[in-house]
Amino acid sequence: MSRSNLDLVNECDGFPYYQVDPDLFAASISTYYELRVQNRDYALGYLLPSVAEVFRGIPHWHIDDDERILTLTEGTDAASRSAAVQTTFLALRTTGHFKVLDKWRDELYPVYGRQKELLFNVERSASPLLGVVTYGVHLTAYVVKDGEMKIWIPRRARTKQTYGGMLDNAVAGGIASGESAFECLVRECGEEASLPEDLVRSRVKTAGCVTYFYIRDERAGGETRLLQPECQYVYDLELTEDVIPKPGDEEVEEFCLWTVDEVKAAMAKGEFKPNCAIVMLDFFIRHGVLTAESEKDYIEIVARVHRRFEFPTL
Amino acid sequence: MSRSNLDLVNECDGFPYYQVDPDLFAASISTYYELRVQNRDYALGYLLPSVAEVFRGIPHWHIDDDERILTLTEGTDAASRSAAVQTTFLALRTTGHFKVLDKWRDELYPVYGRQKELLFNVERSASPLLGVVTYGVHLTAYVVKDGEMKIWIPRRARTKQTYGGMLDNAVAGGIASGESAFECLVRECGEEASLPEDLVRSRVKTAGCVTYFYIRDERAGGETRLLQPECQYVYDLELTEDVIPKPGDEEVEEFCLWTVDEVKAAMAKGEFKPNCAIVMLDFFIRHGVLTAESEKDYIEIVARVHRRFEFPTL
Repeated sequence: MSRSNLDLVNECDGFPYYQVDPDLFAASISTYYELRVQNRDYALGYLLPSVAEVFRGIPHWHIDDDERILTLTEGTDAASRSAAVQTTFLALRTTGHFKVLDKWRDELYPVYGRQKELLFNVERSASPLLGVVTYGVHLTAYVVKDGEMKIWIPRRARTKQTYGGMLDNAVAGGIASGESAFECLVRECGEEASLPEDLVRSRVKTAGCVTYFYIRDERAGGETRLLQPECQYVYDLELTEDVIPKPGDEEVEEFCLWTVDEVKAAMAKGEFKPNCAIVMLDFFIRHGVLTAESEKDYIEIVARVHRRFEFPTL
Repeated sequence: MSRSNLDLVNECDGFPYYQVDPDLFAASISTYYELRVQNRDYALGYLLPSVAEVFRGIPHWHIDDDERILTLTEGTDAASRSAAVQTTFLALRTTGHFKVLDKWRDELYPVYGRQKELLFNVERSASPLLGVVTYGVHLTAYVVKDGEMKIWIPRRARTKQTYGGMLDNAVAGGIASGESAFECLVRECGEEASLPEDLVRSRVKTAGCVTYFYIRDERAGGETRLLQPECQYVYDLELTEDVIPKPGDEEVEEFCLWTVDEVKAAMAKGEFKPNCAIVMLDFFIRHGVLTAESEKDYIEIVARVHRRFEFPTL
């Protein structure tokens, strides 16, 4: 069945909004636990009760069932909190409590407080368990010839455990703690699309960010229903015809140069990884492919792909 | 005192967010009345109690003080509802109840329901009394020479009653009921900047929309604290050096061609009309002038200028 662009947004930004449906929001919220750190009286993320339950009795953590709050009680600075978090997840990995930890990445993601201070780092594969905001970069590479735009679209390897065989953005990757968005982008452009560093540095355009509140399904691998609020910095790169992106690793099967209509058709068939479809929608809006006249849900789509989170962000 | 870009956003998007501060939101909300129409159980806007009070006893309206809801009870279709609304505001204009009605425009703004159906039209000057979403177009015109961008910035006539002497976007205007965003833009480009229609139609780029929830102050004229949720469709127009925008009416004093740094400096000094500063921020984000590395409040700014409203939009 054909998906509308708003369907694609709903698939990626699935967490309810208070201002649109207070009852649904309240019903959802009441099933989760808030994640906090000691001496900060605000939420950093939401956890499933089944996840929060596992922290009961683990040193460094306190669970308040009445208020539904899980608090990291250990540590007074980023280093000591990070150490406690790492100890916890290394142990939980060993005990096999969570399937998502089977894909341990040995890569740290940052979690920030309201003053934009780093509160702690957490192993990447563990971040959806805590429901904290994570950060990444997505690049759309395109060619304009005789006034017609074509877009480079990679297909993910069918053997990939997460979203195997689905369509992606030209380059995408997570930003590790301490890395800047732009340097992450330059690195990923080399690794994922074999794009020369000097070309990227001189030609790429920073174009904003998309933010959405994703609820993980089976395609993400591991536990489902985990909450994943994400911020993806978006970049555009107009390439000349002689530059051909090439997969730099096993993660991408092939790059295809598609017309806008071909991309739209694949989106409507649900062939894109959900957050990559959102990045394409943002690109289409910024480049006038989608307009107020051509897209019936224009205003809602623009607002939804730039969600304001209840959690602090960088 | 110098304003940060987030200060500029706060000035324009001043209504609280539930998800960030539920208590502040609840305190604000509890002071307003919801606007509804018969047989639609959702809000179309918020009214000040002092405004809602005036509707007490006026035919076609029902005020529920317990639930704090003002309902338009007359009419079963857009035509009959619009007639009732018009009758009401013509009378209130005559009685001199509201200062904002002194600037009667004889121009109708549309109010939509959740199915994007037109519920009624309302005289433009009356729309902030009802607190309904209004729609407009804003154009940023710029020139790129030797790799440096310069932006055409008009200064509003100092004699103008609203935001007199402040800086504006190259072209801006409200979309009347029945008019498309793009046709409105083309018309305003001619009226406000004397830009040739064929140039606009062939060169202008549709680039999204900004949405924000403005609380009117004395600079807007008339009653203060009125609520004004707005959607501005944004457009970019790159001009060659030989095209000079010229004021088409008395509303603009002059157009200046400024460097990005000059524009930023004027923004920091608070010289821009609040919603025009927001449009400039969105332009700067889309064009890579503001980046994740250079703007400390990047993510919040991007989300805030694309607010999702609790009211239906087109």
